[in-house]
Amino acid sequence: MATSEDADHQVTVVDFWANGFGMRARIALRELGVAFRYVEEDLRVRERSELVRRMNPVHRSVPILIHGGRPVCGSVNILQYVDEVWGPTLFPRDPLQRAHARFWADFVDQKVFSTQTRFLKSKGDEKEAAKGELLEQLKRLEEVLGDKTFFAGDEFGFLDAVLIPFSSMFHGYEQHGGFDLDVECPSLMSWVRRCKERKSVKGVLPDEDKMYELHKKWYGIE
Amino acid sequence: MATSEDADHQVTVVDFWANGFGMRARIALRELGVAFRYVEEDLRVRERSELVRRMNPVHRSVPILIHGGRPVCGSVNILQYVDEVWGPTLFPRDPLQRAHARFWADFVDQKVFSTQTRFLKSKGDEKEAAKGELLEQLKRLEEVLGDKTFFAGDEFGFLDAVLIPFSSMFHGYEQHGGFDLDVECPSLMSWVRRCKERKSVKGVLPDEDKMYELHKKWYGIE
Repeated sequence: MATSEDADHQVTVVDFWANGFGMRARIALRELGVAFRYVEEDLRVRERSELVRRMNPVHRSVPILIHGGRPVCGSVNILQYVDEVWGPTLFPRDPLQRAHARFWADFVDQKVFSTQTRFLKSKGDEKEAAKGELLEQLKRLEEVLGDKTFFAGDEFGFLDAVLIPFSSMFHGYEQHGGFDLDVECPSLMSWVRRCKERKSVKGVLPDEDKMYELHKKWYGIE
Repeated sequence: MATSEDADHQVTVVDFWANGFGMRARIALRELGVAFRYVEEDLRVRERSELVRRMNPVHRSVPILIHGGRPVCGSVNILQYVDEVWGPTLFPRDPLQRAHARFWADFVDQKVFSTQTRFLKSKGDEKEAAKGELLEQLKRLEEVLGDKTFFAGDEFGFLDAVLIPFSSMFHGYEQHGGFDLDVECPSLMSWVRRCKERKSVKGVLPDEDKMYELHKKWYGIE
């Protein structure tokens, strides 16, 4: 159903500036040179906008990609859609490598994200346990990266777009956990710096202090 | 790393007979006419086999598809891989319809599965609440099906393969919840019967009583 808000803009992304899942979609669109309109959905407000309720009635979550009035929801789903419509650029051509990339994207979503949440909202022993797990997971991702420039090789791709938004919380991890990621995961941190040299990433990742401040409020971190 | 167990069998599926996620992979391979060797991993035993620990060291879970000695893990990931290697057959051609199918597959995995678990393991008010949610979710899927033969139209495809294994617990749902799915979701139940007429599905779905018995033991249902 085409609506007036799409009449002048074929592609719209509805997102919140600090939403790591949504940053993926915005980075992918920039990588592929797709112009889009950005609509901010303030997730600090409890009530979702009429646009979000209409475009994603099932989850009422962002990001939402609206293309010609039709919504695509879910960040990994959006990346696949973006690549199918405006690519193929983000995914390796080899099915096994594609499956490998999707496997690790799922690892980020199912493991890293929940460990991050546990780490930020807990205290004492639980916090220490979550911190250990988080570092272990980041080191595992560092192993997957190996000595490659980007996760799939020489070109920035799907798994890079999936993971790089989390780096906007790395400063927060360090502050909250009292560790130095340059010491813990040096190759991963070099990859972060390489990614941040890209216009697509630089234009999307928010200020790290601002990110940590927001999460401190969110999780009641003193 | 190719191993002796793959020498004579290019494709192997490691799975547990009652694993709804793994049934998806087996159904998809049968749909595409791919011969495969089946290796049973008994999930009632706490310790995972050497094969599972080696092929899926991150999650130590099944299903695992092994193709020429290389593992692909995660049921939705496997379906995409199977379709990329031996298809394309399972996914619609239109990117928007593909995104739609992936969105609802994610709904099944994130919502229906966790609601099923809550429904089966709870009692009293919590069970009643979960039962209500489960029926609501099944009705939503019935709406997505609409009056189509299969989820993407006339042909059995990805979302059918994702959802149909859950139907092997529908008899269990009815027993546990005291409702009749033919009354609650008549079109969805007609779709179940259409799917079950297919060799690919019939050859994979386990006996419903056996499934419910297993889950009763698992969740301590009296």
